[in-house]
Amino acid sequence: MKGYCRVCPVCDGRACAGEVPGMGGIGTGSAFMNNLSALASVRLNMKTLHTIAVPDTGIDLFGRRLSLPVLAAPIGGVSFNMGGKISEEQYIQAVLGGCAAAGTLGCVGDGVPEFIHQAGYEAIRDLGGVGIPFIKPWEDAELFAKLDKAKDAGATVVGMDIDAAGLVTLRLMGRPVSPKPPEKLREIIEKIPMKFILKGIMSPEEALIAADAGADAVVVSNHGGRVLDHTPGTAEVLSAVARAVKGKITIIADGGVRTGADVLKMLALGADAVMIGRPFSVAAIGGLQEGVVKYIEQIQSELVSAMVLTGTASAAAVERSVIYEPFREG
Amino acid sequence: MKGYCRVCPVCDGRACAGEVPGMGGIGTGSAFMNNLSALASVRLNMKTLHTIAVPDTGIDLFGRRLSLPVLAAPIGGVSFNMGGKISEEQYIQAVLGGCAAAGTLGCVGDGVPEFIHQAGYEAIRDLGGVGIPFIKPWEDAELFAKLDKAKDAGATVVGMDIDAAGLVTLRLMGRPVSPKPPEKLREIIEKIPMKFILKGIMSPEEALIAADAGADAVVVSNHGGRVLDHTPGTAEVLSAVARAVKGKITIIADGGVRTGADVLKMLALGADAVMIGRPFSVAAIGGLQEGVVKYIEQIQSELVSAMVLTGTASAAAVERSVIYEPFREG
Amino acid sequence: MKGYCRVCPVCDGRACAGEVPGMGGIGTGSAFMNNLSALASVRLNMKTLHTIAVPDTGIDLFGRRLSLPVLAAPIGGVSFNMGGKISEEQYIQAVLGGCAAAGTLGCVGDGVPEFIHQAGYEAIRDLGGVGIPFIKPWEDAELFAKLDKAKDAGATVVGMDIDAAGLVTLRLMGRPVSPKPPEKLREIIEKIPMKFILKGIMSPEEALIAADAGADAVVVSNHGGRVLDHTPGTAEVLSAVARAVKGKITIIADGGVRTGADVLKMLALGADAVMIGRPFSVAAIGGLQEGVVKYIEQIQSELVSAMVLTGTASAAAVERSVIYEPFREG
Amino acid sequence: MKGYCRVCPVCDGRACAGEVPGMGGIGTGSAFMNNLSALASVRLNMKTLHTIAVPDTGIDLFGRRLSLPVLAAPIGGVSFNMGGKISEEQYIQAVLGGCAAAGTLGCVGDGVPEFIHQAGYEAIRDLGGVGIPFIKPWEDAELFAKLDKAKDAGATVVGMDIDAAGLVTLRLMGRPVSPKPPEKLREIIEKIPMKFILKGIMSPEEALIAADAGADAVVVSNHGGRVLDHTPGTAEVLSAVARAVKGKITIIADGGVRTGADVLKMLALGADAVMIGRPFSVAAIGGLQEGVVKYIEQIQSELVSAMVLTGTASAAAVERSVIYEPFREG
Repeated sequence: MKGYCRVCPVCDGRACAGEVPGMGGIGTGSAFMNNLSALASVRLNMKTLHTIAVPDTGIDLFGRRLSLPVLAAPIGGVSFNMGGKISEEQYIQAVLGGCAAAGTLGCVGDGVPEFIHQAGYEAIRDLGGVGIPFIKPWEDAELFAKLDKAKDAGATVVGMDIDAAGLVTLRLMGRPVSPKPPEKLREIIEKIPMKFILKGIMSPEEALIAADAGADAVVVSNHGGRVLDHTPGTAEVLSAVARAVKGKITIIADGGVRTGADVLKMLALGADAVMIGRPFSVAAIGGLQEGVVKYIEQIQSELVSAMVLTGTASAAAVERSVIYEPFREG
Repeated sequence: MKGYCRVCPVCDGRACAGEVPGMGGIGTGSAFMNNLSALASVRLNMKTLHTIAVPDTGIDLFGRRLSLPVLAAPIGGVSFNMGGKISEEQYIQAVLGGCAAAGTLGCVGDGVPEFIHQAGYEAIRDLGGVGIPFIKPWEDAELFAKLDKAKDAGATVVGMDIDAAGLVTLRLMGRPVSPKPPEKLREIIEKIPMKFILKGIMSPEEALIAADAGADAVVVSNHGGRVLDHTPGTAEVLSAVARAVKGKITIIADGGVRTGADVLKMLALGADAVMIGRPFSVAAIGGLQEGVVKYIEQIQSELVSAMVLTGTASAAAVERSVIYEPFREG
Repeated sequence: MKGYCRVCPVCDGRACAGEVPGMGGIGTGSAFMNNLSALASVRLNMKTLHTIAVPDTGIDLFGRRLSLPVLAAPIGGVSFNMGGKISEEQYIQAVLGGCAAAGTLGCVGDGVPEFIHQAGYEAIRDLGGVGIPFIKPWEDAELFAKLDKAKDAGATVVGMDIDAAGLVTLRLMGRPVSPKPPEKLREIIEKIPMKFILKGIMSPEEALIAADAGADAVVVSNHGGRVLDHTPGTAEVLSAVARAVKGKITIIADGGVRTGADVLKMLALGADAVMIGRPFSVAAIGGLQEGVVKYIEQIQSELVSAMVLTGTASAAAVERSVIYEPFREG
Repeated sequence: MKGYCRVCPVCDGRACAGEVPGMGGIGTGSAFMNNLSALASVRLNMKTLHTIAVPDTGIDLFGRRLSLPVLAAPIGGVSFNMGGKISEEQYIQAVLGGCAAAGTLGCVGDGVPEFIHQAGYEAIRDLGGVGIPFIKPWEDAELFAKLDKAKDAGATVVGMDIDAAGLVTLRLMGRPVSPKPPEKLREIIEKIPMKFILKGIMSPEEALIAADAGADAVVVSNHGGRVLDHTPGTAEVLSAVARAVKGKITIIADGGVRTGADVLKMLALGADAVMIGRPFSVAAIGGLQEGVVKYIEQIQSELVSAMVLTGTASAAAVERSVIYEPFREG
């Protein structure tokens, strides 16, 4: 089992700590686990004396109406990282198809074997452009070639997981990824005719740089804890990011979201929507498109219950006050 | 064993995390576990240089004299959630009968199979009205029908577990439960000829709403952690609730109470009485009425000892100062 | 093994939680475990640039010179609580004899079977009065009868473990123990011709009462966590007790001391000497008097090392500054 | 296995707690574990919008250019403490040779069996003086004899692990080690013609004493948690030490460093370089010189990745701001 996902009762990064490659977090796994523990430390104010019996989970995102504020995060290479039971094509069709069928959006990952992005783009094309491709921060030639392919596949929104910039082994393989200074980021965004998401923001300073450079959205993410050990959990930095750029650009929160209550927490902390990663992979491996739809339905049902029990009418307008702040003795 | 109570040495929500249905807390089980950890973090000031050798554990509640400030919480469906060893009738007779025999009060739960409340009301009738029925926040027809039945059974006090409002599956089954806005709550209370307890309050704001709407008592409760994951422990919010409504209405604290020392802590934090849930179920399944009586005697003996060792003369007047506050170095 | 000591690598109250009778802490065992965790949270400032190569571990206590500031705490009934391998006589002779041979003092416990105190007083008599009997807070007849016997045995110092006042079962057996109000305490102390130690103080208020009533010493103790669950660790309250009575009466700290470094911590927090309980019982059961001597030698060797590495010249004058206080970023 | 290293996935002092002799921390192992937990509590600010794609890990130390700011700590007696698979000669040649081959420096330990330092000095001689011998704080005769031998071996830098001063058993064996008062330290340093490192500093006060006495460098170290239980983790005291002596003398941090990210943290907290201990022993036992080289390459690759992902251009100039400081809600 070592190196493959154990399908734990709660997907929290303990069993798979250090399994990169694999599905785990890098090193001690602390960055993955911090995502879970940061969310777990946020607690909810239960409220039942109000009129909200049937809340609305829908949001508008990138010009589409989504049934709930949850996207499947871009994960490539699941076909080999989860044990080889299904092909990359089957995998990404299940994720994107399941998300589309349930009224939301799935994302497509990138990586060194060419079949990862190829399978993803093909699935986007099959769905008429419904799906968001993410591309690693390659140097220009590879980057723009892939952006062109993504556009050809019909994508109207595209993302870059800039936090892959620390993969030093890619440089040794002759295909370097790298950080992008603000001016370079602006240049890239100006060349792209699609909406642009920058994934891997962990500070208000860099969220502001992304907004200034013209990004349409940032994803607050530490790459599932897979690139830099000892980063804080995303729920910890989300409030500060929201204070910096909320309303200017779209804020998506990624990292450790497992239940509808977690979705509500991220929205209360300032996100407009969330991404969920590994649990979608488990659902797709276990039940293909039907598994993905069932998983989304479960999250939505939990979100409805959490919204009722906190008196939240709409996922598009979640109050910070749903978060419990301990009462200090005077 | 999965799905059934393991009868752990300390009933703390770890082994049964996520087992709903079952006896566990919902999701990660954090709300159930928070009840225990919130109480565990409260520590006691040991005092022995005083005159309190034989303290009085009795209190007055709803016009009755109770031998100790402990009620059996309303739990329905134990006959199937605990593994089917005894019937719902045997179960609820054991709980209510044991409480009455030991000089206190038991409560009766509600739920979808009709036999749950029927067994409870029958047991209350058999005891001449000694017992408190709790009804879920159904819409009017079902709600008032059950309130009538409760009155017919001789109950002089009735409660509503408003925190069941998040059970979204009931709505799909055509029997919706829902939150109640303040005006609706007032309307319900005005129609009820019995004393009224609102169970599921987790904030001073909602405690005030309940008091203003005419409730006789609130139960600070997160429903044993079974409805909304990540709620704080009840002992954490109790002080703030007490500051808001202490003296105006009766405050009952529910959640994680396991020993006489825990009872004393809840009283010191501001409760007038406490409810204990799962341990009563274990006692009833294991020893029927005799088991329940023995459990109450044990709690009472522990409470006496804790009162002696903190210099507390009466359970009706517990000082906040029995709680240890760390000494800060100057 | 259940109910008997498991001789854990670190005696910390986890394995035996709730085992009363037995060697454990009461209830959840938290009071026992708090003793350990409170001490563990105290950390030491390592210093090596000084002249202290051969420190002095000796202190003066109750008119005697002790080789180290460590007493064996009073524990009765070890013969049955540890599994019956040796008799109460063998046990207490090993503890008192070992302490005397190593240049320090052992204490004798009290309890319901008469042989407990009888074995202890006999051992004190055999050692020419070297040993301290502790008597439970009985009502006058039994209390003064035992005090007389203790005096007859040659004891020049006697103690009362007032924290046994919560043993409500003794009252049911017709031999009540009880708290003592200040005036009663003064009356008892005035009648006693020996030096008097009050064991079971957990607050500065009660330490002041003991001092005012004429006690020669207090033992900061929660009775090894065996009488009231959820009391703080003794190391937590020790500083406040010391601020109240240091220099007025002798302060002995009991609870969770396992190593020479722990001894040094208690002295730095304000104790004049410490008591160690369960590890002496383990040493006596395992190696009789020789085991006790070896255990004391080990503690002394560890204490010497800790004194060298913190620059402490004398156990009779330990600086608060040997305790590490985190440096706050400015 | 007891007493020998278990080669745990993360070398954190849990499995081997108390194993001295052996590879563990003394007593409860808390000082060893504190090293790990102090570092783990430091978290990193991920930054990717910058120009740092190929950072420089090199530093200048003691007149040499090192490929990365990592030294192998002095550890003697590995041949017997790790289970006897290789001789002390093979061990120390692997460590020093591996470090030299990878462009950095290894250190040599001291101890009672003469073969420890003899093997080390021989290895230094074989490498033309590349390697740093550490000598225990013996009294003058033994100390200066060993310093002469170290010089004869070609060493140009020498160190003293002053924290070995608490080994009280050495005194009983007639070969006392001892603390050194400031004036004695100055006398020693003045007699030594080589550069001098004082290892075992845990406070700003003693770092200042070392600087004033003429030391070229201090190693912030608690001796891997092997001499005084309950010392803080070195990462906790490092900032305060740096505020006291940064720029005056070289600061090397030792204790719990396991990955490249840990190296970056220590540099951000104020160290000029770090020492790593046990992992080098494991690498040497497992793979001799090749194992040591591979381990250094892994650390360097991790350090490069961590520098890229925090926007750090040079290991010689790490900003404090790479450390994440939680954002406080205003």
